[in-house]
Amino acid sequence: MKAITIKPNNIGVEVKDVEIREQLRKGQALIKTVMTGICGTDRGIVSGKISFAYPPEGYTYLVLGHEGLGRVEETGEDVNELKKGDYVVPVVRRGCGECLNCKIGRQDFCETGKFVEAGIRGKHGFMREEFVDDEKYLVKVPEEVRDVAVLTEPLSNVVKAIDELLFLQRRMIWTCEDSTLECRNAYIVGTGPIGTFFAMVLRTLGLQVFMLNRREPSDIEAYISEKIGATFYDTRKGLEGLPEADLIVDTSGVPEAFIPLMKKLKHNSALVLFGTVEGEKAEFVSDLVTEIVEKNILIMGSVNASKKDFQGALNYLSIWKYRYGDVLTRMITRVVSIEEAPNVLTKKVKGEVKTVIKWS
Amino acid sequence: MKAITIKPNNIGVEVKDVEIREQLRKGQALIKTVMTGICGTDRGIVSGKISFAYPPEGYTYLVLGHEGLGRVEETGEDVNELKKGDYVVPVVRRGCGECLNCKIGRQDFCETGKFVEAGIRGKHGFMREEFVDDEKYLVKVPEEVRDVAVLTEPLSNVVKAIDELLFLQRRMIWTCEDSTLECRNAYIVGTGPIGTFFAMVLRTLGLQVFMLNRREPSDIEAYISEKIGATFYDTRKGLEGLPEADLIVDTSGVPEAFIPLMKKLKHNSALVLFGTVEGEKAEFVSDLVTEIVEKNILIMGSVNASKKDFQGALNYLSIWKYRYGDVLTRMITRVVSIEEAPNVLTKKVKGEVKTVIKWS
Amino acid sequence: MKAITIKPNNIGVEVKDVEIREQLRKGQALIKTVMTGICGTDRGIVSGKISFAYPPEGYTYLVLGHEGLGRVEETGEDVNELKKGDYVVPVVRRGCGECLNCKIGRQDFCETGKFVEAGIRGKHGFMREEFVDDEKYLVKVPEEVRDVAVLTEPLSNVVKAIDELLFLQRRMIWTCEDSTLECRNAYIVGTGPIGTFFAMVLRTLGLQVFMLNRREPSDIEAYISEKIGATFYDTRKGLEGLPEADLIVDTSGVPEAFIPLMKKLKHNSALVLFGTVEGEKAEFVSDLVTEIVEKNILIMGSVNASKKDFQGALNYLSIWKYRYGDVLTRMITRVVSIEEAPNVLTKKVKGEVKTVIKWS
Amino acid sequence: MKAITIKPNNIGVEVKDVEIREQLRKGQALIKTVMTGICGTDRGIVSGKISFAYPPEGYTYLVLGHEGLGRVEETGEDVNELKKGDYVVPVVRRGCGECLNCKIGRQDFCETGKFVEAGIRGKHGFMREEFVDDEKYLVKVPEEVRDVAVLTEPLSNVVKAIDELLFLQRRMIWTCEDSTLECRNAYIVGTGPIGTFFAMVLRTLGLQVFMLNRREPSDIEAYISEKIGATFYDTRKGLEGLPEADLIVDTSGVPEAFIPLMKKLKHNSALVLFGTVEGEKAEFVSDLVTEIVEKNILIMGSVNASKKDFQGALNYLSIWKYRYGDVLTRMITRVVSIEEAPNVLTKKVKGEVKTVIKWS
Repeated sequence: MKAITIKPNNIGVEVKDVEIREQLRKGQALIKTVMTGICGTDRGIVSGKISFAYPPEGYTYLVLGHEGLGRVEETGEDVNELKKGDYVVPVVRRGCGECLNCKIGRQDFCETGKFVEAGIRGKHGFMREEFVDDEKYLVKVPEEVRDVAVLTEPLSNVVKAIDELLFLQRRMIWTCEDSTLECRNAYIVGTGPIGTFFAMVLRTLGLQVFMLNRREPSDIEAYISEKIGATFYDTRKGLEGLPEADLIVDTSGVPEAFIPLMKKLKHNSALVLFGTVEGEKAEFVSDLVTEIVEKNILIMGSVNASKKDFQGALNYLSIWKYRYGDVLTRMITRVVSIEEAPNVLTKKVKGEVKTVIKWS
Repeated sequence: MKAITIKPNNIGVEVKDVEIREQLRKGQALIKTVMTGICGTDRGIVSGKISFAYPPEGYTYLVLGHEGLGRVEETGEDVNELKKGDYVVPVVRRGCGECLNCKIGRQDFCETGKFVEAGIRGKHGFMREEFVDDEKYLVKVPEEVRDVAVLTEPLSNVVKAIDELLFLQRRMIWTCEDSTLECRNAYIVGTGPIGTFFAMVLRTLGLQVFMLNRREPSDIEAYISEKIGATFYDTRKGLEGLPEADLIVDTSGVPEAFIPLMKKLKHNSALVLFGTVEGEKAEFVSDLVTEIVEKNILIMGSVNASKKDFQGALNYLSIWKYRYGDVLTRMITRVVSIEEAPNVLTKKVKGEVKTVIKWS
Repeated sequence: MKAITIKPNNIGVEVKDVEIREQLRKGQALIKTVMTGICGTDRGIVSGKISFAYPPEGYTYLVLGHEGLGRVEETGEDVNELKKGDYVVPVVRRGCGECLNCKIGRQDFCETGKFVEAGIRGKHGFMREEFVDDEKYLVKVPEEVRDVAVLTEPLSNVVKAIDELLFLQRRMIWTCEDSTLECRNAYIVGTGPIGTFFAMVLRTLGLQVFMLNRREPSDIEAYISEKIGATFYDTRKGLEGLPEADLIVDTSGVPEAFIPLMKKLKHNSALVLFGTVEGEKAEFVSDLVTEIVEKNILIMGSVNASKKDFQGALNYLSIWKYRYGDVLTRMITRVVSIEEAPNVLTKKVKGEVKTVIKWS
Repeated sequence: MKAITIKPNNIGVEVKDVEIREQLRKGQALIKTVMTGICGTDRGIVSGKISFAYPPEGYTYLVLGHEGLGRVEETGEDVNELKKGDYVVPVVRRGCGECLNCKIGRQDFCETGKFVEAGIRGKHGFMREEFVDDEKYLVKVPEEVRDVAVLTEPLSNVVKAIDELLFLQRRMIWTCEDSTLECRNAYIVGTGPIGTFFAMVLRTLGLQVFMLNRREPSDIEAYISEKIGATFYDTRKGLEGLPEADLIVDTSGVPEAFIPLMKKLKHNSALVLFGTVEGEKAEFVSDLVTEIVEKNILIMGSVNASKKDFQGALNYLSIWKYRYGDVLTRMITRVVSIEEAPNVLTKKVKGEVKTVIKWS
């Protein structure tokens, strides 16, 4: 079958005919790929900037793709919930089997680092015509969100982070006088798909949201922020126009972007670190340590998501599909064919929010 | 009565005769001061390095002292739990009365910053012969720890921080395969009284503890670390001798001290920031952001404590008093008279762990 | 204006012209009532079976109605989020202002019992043409669910109960091997609107759901249970056909209904008590105590909801509106005029799920 | 070696010479038994009233004893923390190895019920001269509490229950206006060793405690309740003398004992069920259901404890040893020889709090 593959440590990507040795076993399903999304990690692997990608044992290449959407073609024995025709999103990370968090299905908190990740580390991804997977890693997609369900995987990571944050903030009273979160202000640093999803989740939870970038919003950014009731803010004009922050979510990974914002953090606030990048740095002064201490500030790094977060993501998609009109469909800025994929994997598409490859 | 006072923005400290207008009201008790401890904040105020100290309204001076121990001399109406002769430790911070956390007695999480703190901000401290206070701010001292109860206040801040940390780490499975915390390694940066208390609390909770400093241990440090089953580690010899860390507690406030250690942090680990200092800085690189993100690392600033933490501190003192022999009494390295106090408040005593002023 | 009123301790209900002394003040909005739902509590008050209803101070009658939906007609000063034309659902209970839970906006956990409840205890309800209310008690309705938003209030109570349950069940690992709740079985005792909402929330969270009653399902019950993927179970045929339970939710209040089911409870399971009724009883034997003890079973009573739960309810309505087709609209089995209201308040409508009064 | 054994389903107990096939393996230690406590479960097994006891595979008898205290005699390879001469308390329950809670060392929440329990179900107990055990099931005893450490096991179960309760009560604000628990009243039903431990833990946490029984206190009960600051209350004189309850802990298992008390439960209160008994019953009326619902009341069954709770128990023993003078040593009302053991296992000792067998 056709697949989009890379060779680790070789720059470039190709569509090639591959033969993956997979057999449909008990508890598994054969999935026809419908769509796969493209994200920065994919392009980092293709360009050689990301060095941690590696093929599964016994292979010299790696099939790319961790943002998948498929349709059940066939089910093996002992498959209970899924049936032919169901749409599914596959979970990306598979646990180490050793640490306690992996044992309870929370491989997003794997402690050993010995996990594999489809399309990234040691496991073929979903940019191929079909794949076999365990039912326990396949998340059923409700009918009403099939058309946007390729967004589930990136959103699941956001859901995990916010779910954890809300638990952590029970350390004191963070809810407002009316029990909601409407008195809380959040800054989102970075306005790509992940930043947009953070903004949407936080708006749905009631917070006031400011989407920060060092430029004017693009047309689509302006449209989305208006639709979801968030404020796009160009940080080149200084921080005076922003209210103090109860929450900052950084999706950029750039210390120089989020550290200067930290002076706006209020007592009991939190900074969520989500983005990663290479080669950047900033100064960290002891006055900022004092602020973090004196104000009981929390900083939380967050990565990956478990199956429950994929389910949570699908529930958000259901809410937003009708609440925010065409925002979700507009986030899929371009759908390309398999043949066009190497092109869009090699360089970012202009005006892109999310570019998607269509498989069937 | 005699009191130890400072004038804000004037360097220096004096013993003087003061008249504080306090009357014993309903729900209050008159307390004879027994001992007051001296800490870095007191010396910072005296030397003028700390600029946030200010007197109560209507006074030109501030009575110093937030680490108090007293004896009930007289009780007003509606005092239920306390009676003449009881030993008590007063709570330091008094809430703003406005924010939700202050309303529920958690002024350590005050959101407005409009709190006062005895001996520091806007309220006379306990370095005076007697004071009147509300029963709700007086923590009763069990008999068996009266001799070391002057240590309660600094310890209470440690108890608050660890209590919060343990709640936060319920975000995933942080306990070991046997349900304890014995598989977890903690570094403590800084080996003063606060660092020592962190080490003692964490040992009591079962963790392996490494007390870090950039020098050989002093005699008393060597004695204490051995007694409590912790390892004193001289960081000048490199970090290779340390196992990976599940927890780092910084009591130094110096970015250059704790940032280099962060590369030893494991998945799901935490960094507790407790210390503050001025004029230090370090570089914060994006690789460290990536570590924080990819490993779900938590950073938590912590300040102050509420009454429940003072009670928790007294329970720890009761445990340690007999478990660790003379460690607690040895931590009080010197007891001085009121007249000697200005001297020891002006410069750190050599070999000091905790210097204490005796009042009665 | 027209209002539906009762006189406490007098059986009966009437539509009458009332004059309520309300003025639009700072932070308030004038609301035109759109719809009000009718529930068992309303009928209990009308029939005199419920004896705790009483009028506001200064009134001899009480305006009924706690399931409201209105449209903002006018806003006072300092109203920030609402504007003319917005649809809103009012919160029912207003806190005592004394206890800590009321102070933080969690009047659903009022400790003194000195709260008032619109349409029930000491405060006029929403069965009148218009009312004035504080913005902080008005929950904004997203456009896509305006037509079913009269269901928000009853659903909010379910959301509160499940939200609390999920927090409580973090006492151990209750999630399944894949991190979801799909391995958990829930029984719902009682298949009225509240039981149906519990079934829908739990299905959305992934649990397997069994809706129990001592009869065949009605047509609408059969339709709904099938649509949401739950199993309707007639308990007259014995309990053998049911798998063991991880959760039982009782909406009946009848001990004879839920106590016999408790033998099906698994280790670490929970029983949520939500329904209340008068004059029923059952035997409680020590063997059942042993089961509760040996299996770490939790029993949780739950009442009322706070503003955050109303918001949560609206999010569920958005999910379900498209996921479950016409289930929500079909739950509103009848819409009556103001004049017909006394009739439907006096006796239950045949085949009713939810009967609603239309105001404008 | 000598052991105290029973034959399941045969009434009676004997001291006999047994040969247990145990070999010291990696990660294990050979333990010389020092003391074993006797509790109701032991006597229930001996009298045949408890029917769930059974021997390990390959044995026709069961060595009794789950309240152990021993001294390390020899350690196998890979034993890290323990060394010859250390005192240890062994954990009782060993997990099923299948369910998620057992996998994370929380066998007290075993979901399958396939655990074994030393001295009770499928595993030889500690009433023998020596035994071999895994280091992970051996809890090291601090020196200062060696003389009372035979009380660790029963206390560990109390620690687990209260630890869980405190987590559960974070569902709302249960702490008082000063952040402590001093405004909360607890009733303890039953004044045996378990009831006494509950009283002591709750006093240490700051609650007001009422120890309830249907009689006058014995001398030792009067002594203990006075020492720990609790009130002994004879319920034969009615409930009027008791303040309303925020917490009831039942250690009796008798529905007729705790159900009538439930009318005293306040909003947001909890009932902890800990005791079990056979053949008792009471009426459970719908009015009580209404109370549970309307007041958000929680009922929590609790059984067993994990290693962390044994550590917590030892910390409490250290606190109490000096705080409560000779209360702990007085709780050990009698120490008997191995030969006397069958006698005291057959019938309760008059005036007994805890009877203990001395082994070495």
